[in-house]
Amino acid sequence: MAKINSNYTNLQENYLFVEIAKRTAAYQKAHPEARVIKLGIGDVTRPIAAVAADAMIAANEELKHAETFRGYGPELGYKFAKAAVQRYYANYGVDVDFDELTIGDGIGSDLANITDLFSSDNTVLIPDPVYPLYKATSIMDGRRICYLECSIENNFLPTPPDYPSDLIYLCSPNNPTGATFDYAQLKAWVDYANACGAVILYDSAYERFIADDDKPHSIFEIEGARTCAIEFCSLSKTAGFTCVRSGYTFVPKELVREGVSLNRMWQQRQTTKYNGAPYATQRGLEAALSAEGLRQADENIAYYKRNVQPITAFLEQKGIFYCGGHNSPYIWMRCPQAMTSWEFFDFLLNTVQVVGTPGVGFGACGEHYFRLSTFNTYEATQEAMERLANVL
Amino acid sequence: MAKINSNYTNLQENYLFVEIAKRTAAYQKAHPEARVIKLGIGDVTRPIAAVAADAMIAANEELKHAETFRGYGPELGYKFAKAAVQRYYANYGVDVDFDELTIGDGIGSDLANITDLFSSDNTVLIPDPVYPLYKATSIMDGRRICYLECSIENNFLPTPPDYPSDLIYLCSPNNPTGATFDYAQLKAWVDYANACGAVILYDSAYERFIADDDKPHSIFEIEGARTCAIEFCSLSKTAGFTCVRSGYTFVPKELVREGVSLNRMWQQRQTTKYNGAPYATQRGLEAALSAEGLRQADENIAYYKRNVQPITAFLEQKGIFYCGGHNSPYIWMRCPQAMTSWEFFDFLLNTVQVVGTPGVGFGACGEHYFRLSTFNTYEATQEAMERLANVL
Repeated sequence: MAKINSNYTNLQENYLFVEIAKRTAAYQKAHPEARVIKLGIGDVTRPIAAVAADAMIAANEELKHAETFRGYGPELGYKFAKAAVQRYYANYGVDVDFDELTIGDGIGSDLANITDLFSSDNTVLIPDPVYPLYKATSIMDGRRICYLECSIENNFLPTPPDYPSDLIYLCSPNNPTGATFDYAQLKAWVDYANACGAVILYDSAYERFIADDDKPHSIFEIEGARTCAIEFCSLSKTAGFTCVRSGYTFVPKELVREGVSLNRMWQQRQTTKYNGAPYATQRGLEAALSAEGLRQADENIAYYKRNVQPITAFLEQKGIFYCGGHNSPYIWMRCPQAMTSWEFFDFLLNTVQVVGTPGVGFGACGEHYFRLSTFNTYEATQEAMERLANVL
Repeated sequence: MAKINSNYTNLQENYLFVEIAKRTAAYQKAHPEARVIKLGIGDVTRPIAAVAADAMIAANEELKHAETFRGYGPELGYKFAKAAVQRYYANYGVDVDFDELTIGDGIGSDLANITDLFSSDNTVLIPDPVYPLYKATSIMDGRRICYLECSIENNFLPTPPDYPSDLIYLCSPNNPTGATFDYAQLKAWVDYANACGAVILYDSAYERFIADDDKPHSIFEIEGARTCAIEFCSLSKTAGFTCVRSGYTFVPKELVREGVSLNRMWQQRQTTKYNGAPYATQRGLEAALSAEGLRQADENIAYYKRNVQPITAFLEQKGIFYCGGHNSPYIWMRCPQAMTSWEFFDFLLNTVQVVGTPGVGFGACGEHYFRLSTFNTYEATQEAMERLANVL
C-alpha cells in the first residue's frame, strides 16, 4: 500500500490569493455595475521587450527547418544563456562561473526543488511577513520552522537570531514590505550563516527595482557569501517574463556541507530530475539581458515606479505609516483605524471598490498591514487614491 | 549546520550517456578523419510541425503588445491546452476531466516531482532494463528498490510479482527494449496494484509509435486503472518537442491512498512548487495535438519507422536476436559473439565507427544487449548496416 507524504496534511486549505479572488468575485456578482480597481495585483502588466519576444520568435522559426532544428538542450542551460547571466552579474561586480549557474523556469521551481538537497531534519528560518512559498514548501518537506519577526521596530528587516539554524530564506527587496538590506545588514547574515554552517537561500526577484546605491542587488556582492549562500533570480519582475518562465540559480563551488559540494548535488538533481529550459525561452533570456533588452525592461519598471507617487502622497497626507515603493513595486501600509488586514480589505472593497492584499496573508506579523501594488495603470492608481481620499 | 540529503551519495558517478559521449569524443580526437554514424541517439531529429512552431510564434507576438500581453498563467495549465489533451485522449476512448490534467514541461520533471506526494518509506518496483530516471530518482529519495527482471523468457515484459509493493514504474512501449504491453498484460498490473494498494507511475512517452491495434496507448484504457494509476506523457517523442519542453500528467480523482486524494495532493504540489508551463509552449501543444499538427508529426514518425527495415533486415540475415522497432523507435539486439554491452560498443566504434547504446546502461539485465535508434537519417542508417555487414 503506497504511503503518502503526511506533511501535506499540515498545509492550510485556503491560499491567500484564492481567498482574495473569491471575495472580489462575490462582490462583483452582487454589484455588476461596480468598477473595481485592483491594486492587489502581484503580476506585471506591461508587454515584454520586443527584442526578447523577437528572439523567441526567431528561435521557434529555427525549429521548423531541418538545418536549424534542435533536440534536447543541456539540462543546466545553454552556454549563450549562461553567458548573458554572467555579463548581467558583472554589472554588479559579481564574478560567476558557468559551472555555478543553472538556467531554469523561474524562482518558484528552483527554490522549491533546491530543498531536495537537504535532509528534512533541518531547522528553517523564515522572515514574517514574506512571500508564502517558503513556508508552504518547508511544511511539505516536514522541516522545523522558526519565524523571524519583522515590524516597524526593525524596519521590517530581520537580524540574525542568537541561536543557530540550518537553512535561511531571505528575500530582498522583500515581498510584501519592500524592505531592502543594505550591505552591512546583509553582511551580518552572511557572517551568521558562516559561523553556524547555515545555508542562505536568497531570493532576489525584485533586485531590478532597487533605486538606492547602498543596497546590494546580489548576495554575492557580500564578502563570505560564496561559502554560505545560494541565489535565485528570475526575469519575471526584471523583464516582465511571468508567462514566459525563465530564471537562473547561482550555487557557488565553495558551498560545501558535510564534506559534499552543494553545487555538485544541484547539478545531479537538475540533470536527473529536469530536462532543461526551452531553447526559445533561453534565447528570450539572452535578449532580455542584452543592453537593448534591459533598456526596454527598465522603461516598464520606470512606468510602475511612477505609480508610487500618488499612493505615497496620499498616505503621507493622511499620516498613515507606510514603507516600500522606493526599491520595490509594493507599498506596505498600516491599516487605518486599527482595522485588521481583512477588515480593511472588506472596507475598501465595499466602500470604494479598491482591492489590495491583506498583510496577514504573508504571516502573523503582517496583521494590521496591507499591501498595495504599483502594477496597475497610472490612471487607475490615481483614481484609486482619489476614491480612498473620500472615505479615509 | 545544514544537513544534506545523504541519499545523493548513493548515486552512481558516471551517467550512461556521459560515458558514451566521452568514449566517442576520445575516438574522434584520435581519428579526426573518421566519419562516425550515431545510432545511439535517443532524440528526435526532424523539425517540428510548422503549425506548432507558428502557434508559438503567434503567442510570442501577443506578448509584445499591451492589448494581448499576458502575465502569470494558471499553474496547472490553460484550459485551451487541457482541452487539446482531453480531445487527444478521446481518440483512444479515454475520458479525462480538466481537474485531472496538469500541463507541465515534460515527463522528466513530473515523474521526478510526483514522488513528493509519497513517503520515502515505500518499496518501488522498477523494470530492468529501463530508462535510468526511475532508479536515480528513487535513490535520491531514499526508497527501497526491487527490480523486475526482464529477459527473452518474458519477452522483456515484466509480470506482477508474488509479493506486495507500494510504487511501480511501468514504461510501455519500453525504452530501451520496445516491448509493449497488450491489454491483458497491462490489466494484470492494474489488478495487482488495486489488490495491494500500490500506485502505478505509467510513462507513455512512446505511445505514438504503437503500430499494433491490440496494444493500449494509455493505461486508462484499462478497467480499474482510475484507482491505481498516474499517467505521464509528453510531446517530446509524439511531436518532436524535445527542446520545446511540453507534457501532461493525468492523476484520476478516484486515486486515494490513506484517505487522501492524490489528485488534490498533486494540485497542492504544483500550485505551490511550480508556476505553470509557458504560455507559448502551451499554444504549441494545442497546435501539435490538432488534426493538422498530428498529421505533420505522424509524417516524422513514419520517417523514423522507415529506418527500422534496414536494421531488422540485417539482424535477421545474421540470425541475431532482436525485438522492438515495431511499436517504438528503438531496436534492442543481442550482442553477437557473447560480447558484453561495452565490448560491443567499443568493437563497433573502433571497427566500423558506428555508435549505439550499451544495454547494461539501462540495468543489469541489459548486459549483453545493445540499443540501436531509428532517429538518424535513412541514408546514415543504411550505411551503418552496410558497415556492420562487413565485420559481423
